[in-house]
Amino acid sequence: MGADLNTEVGNRIRQRRALVKMDQAALASRLDVPVSVVQGWESGSGAQPLDLTGLADVATALSTSIADLVPAPEDDLTDGVRLQLPDEDSSIVGSRGGVDYYVYRCLVRSPSVPMLIPLVVDVLVDDRERAEFNGGHAGHEFIYVMEGSVHMQWGDEAAPKTADLPTGASIYISPYVSHTFTALDGRNARLLAVNF
Amino acid sequence: MGADLNTEVGNRIRQRRALVKMDQAALASRLDVPVSVVQGWESGSGAQPLDLTGLADVATALSTSIADLVPAPEDDLTDGVRLQLPDEDSSIVGSRGGVDYYVYRCLVRSPSVPMLIPLVVDVLVDDRERAEFNGGHAGHEFIYVMEGSVHMQWGDEAAPKTADLPTGASIYISPYVSHTFTALDGRNARLLAVNF
Amino acid sequence: MGADLNTEVGNRIRQRRALVKMDQAALASRLDVPVSVVQGWESGSGAQPLDLTGLADVATALSTSIADLVPAPEDDLTDGVRLQLPDEDSSIVGSRGGVDYYVYRCLVRSPSVPMLIPLVVDVLVDDRERAEFNGGHAGHEFIYVMEGSVHMQWGDEAAPKTADLPTGASIYISPYVSHTFTALDGRNARLLAVNF
Amino acid sequence: MGADLNTEVGNRIRQRRALVKMDQAALASRLDVPVSVVQGWESGSGAQPLDLTGLADVATALSTSIADLVPAPEDDLTDGVRLQLPDEDSSIVGSRGGVDYYVYRCLVRSPSVPMLIPLVVDVLVDDRERAEFNGGHAGHEFIYVMEGSVHMQWGDEAAPKTADLPTGASIYISPYVSHTFTALDGRNARLLAVNF
Repeated sequence: MGADLNTEVGNRIRQRRALVKMDQAALASRLDVPVSVVQGWESGSGAQPLDLTGLADVATALSTSIADLVPAPEDDLTDGVRLQLPDEDSSIVGSRGGVDYYVYRCLVRSPSVPMLIPLVVDVLVDDRERAEFNGGHAGHEFIYVMEGSVHMQWGDEAAPKTADLPTGASIYISPYVSHTFTALDGRNARLLAVNF
Repeated sequence: MGADLNTEVGNRIRQRRALVKMDQAALASRLDVPVSVVQGWESGSGAQPLDLTGLADVATALSTSIADLVPAPEDDLTDGVRLQLPDEDSSIVGSRGGVDYYVYRCLVRSPSVPMLIPLVVDVLVDDRERAEFNGGHAGHEFIYVMEGSVHMQWGDEAAPKTADLPTGASIYISPYVSHTFTALDGRNARLLAVNF
Repeated sequence: MGADLNTEVGNRIRQRRALVKMDQAALASRLDVPVSVVQGWESGSGAQPLDLTGLADVATALSTSIADLVPAPEDDLTDGVRLQLPDEDSSIVGSRGGVDYYVYRCLVRSPSVPMLIPLVVDVLVDDRERAEFNGGHAGHEFIYVMEGSVHMQWGDEAAPKTADLPTGASIYISPYVSHTFTALDGRNARLLAVNF
Repeated sequence: MGADLNTEVGNRIRQRRALVKMDQAALASRLDVPVSVVQGWESGSGAQPLDLTGLADVATALSTSIADLVPAPEDDLTDGVRLQLPDEDSSIVGSRGGVDYYVYRCLVRSPSVPMLIPLVVDVLVDDRERAEFNGGHAGHEFIYVMEGSVHMQWGDEAAPKTADLPTGASIYISPYVSHTFTALDGRNARLLAVNF
């Protein structure tokens, strides 16, 4: 572990231990380690570093989860804002069933708000017989049709709801609703998709 | 109150009353009304309708808030999805200091997800001396520069952070961070802004 | 509505309307009322009071729920604390199937923390054949056996889990887990139950 | 890491990576490791185990936090319930300023609900001049006076609010409100304190 991470984890172990009214000796006894090891963890000395399994054991002994003992996400914002210029976007081709289906361009993200995943999505396929549903995902989704037109299908794959949507249409999709888009009018379409 | 609303509020009063182990007579006594009035509320008969002040009194007597006694938002989704076509968008001109500053085009919204407020924003002003900060607002904001370029200012109005952002740039803005946009290059710019 | 409630609801309508970029005229038009009525609501004048049905309509027009437009619970705390003396406790007898089963003594509550419902429960029945399950309820529950001993049954009523618990035993029950207690050893038992 | 933990963390890395539309090669490139290492993590093979620093780097590369990539707390409940018998309680003496002040007896806890920390607290000190405030803590607190009487002080230590509370009194304390108890009437007092 890096020094800061050691220190932060050590502080969180100490605070949780105090909250559940356990002293260092009692925690050491539960984990079958010398009390000096617990002291080392809490001081963040790094002399006897905790790996993930060790941290899972500490969490169980303190009636909590690993997530409660690790640092909050790092803030990478500048006065509350994060910017991304177009040449910083990364792209990836999404294939389904061996066919290049979507190109995703990844827009600004931040560990401070991990549920925000904004994408520009180019829809490459216009054969709706080949549409593959995505199975849905956690989180809400907002979509705006930036260019072209799309055919949207959603819900039960065997008997989906459908809609044709022109440039400028906007869509809200609930968590875990499976959906798919294909292009209309013989040309690619472009969506802006914001997962949140 | 409409019949359904009466019934729903009545059910919620009954459930909360049972949860806090109060009988109808005790609730009536606290509110200084006949027990038949409490029975009427809970049955949703509408014979002695509750106005907001009355409901506030019931909420206080049951150690809760009005919000706990009124229905959840109506679901206006179709299998988890809501669509809005461009000709259904409403528009409004936002003026600041007597100058038309932004045109907002309001995209899809739903009471099921009230924090989602997506807008297409045309930025009409290019004189950054006239930029007026918005003071920030609750909720996160994602912005994508759809057309043109913008000058963004944010944070402390007396000494703001600034950035020039071309088409394709994307931005995350934390809750309550004051910000403003002006157009660059002598022509209007267009943003897609998603509050969530 | 009382004056303060009028004002608070009016402020919340104005703020929500601004957030969704709707002007007073647009809201009035959607609701088919004169714009002066909207102005009256927002000023909290009480000249044209909103009842619950009216407020539900306003909420729908603003893509939100009634709960978003009514005040937060009143704070009845003194520097963050609320006390209740024993002679302020109210009591109620809980009957199941025509038998007096529990006596509930209601301890301190506050609208600031409506999920907190602490009770002293006297268990009057010792015939476990007559035990009636409560069906479970929202919220977590912590129980401490203050006096006597109890037989606890929980889960599937047809084939419940069971345990005999002496004075000093402590129990955590998850939300919506149905459960019931009967006294052991031929005398009443007393529980402290904290729903949270 | 244990095999199960390896597998769980691997699955979570794969799911997050798919969500942010990054392929294994892109993640490997960002972290400057061979793609085979990323494959090893995701398969949970444990061949190249992740320590906490490594996991922090993976989290940053995927715009999230460590907590998002580690397992949820283990469920130690039996059909939604956890019991603790009195002889399983652990005890600890809490000292303040070199004086034994409280004896804490720790009641049932569960990683499934880590905010629940119930305690029986024996109050050993009756000299209110020696009362030491605890500084407050995260989480709500409910207290019931089981035996004896207590003098409670809370809020601003220099000018605290005070109350004398007999057996049977109940108290709600908001998060981060500093408080202290001393015994009254020349004998120890006993509290049941439920942090939640």
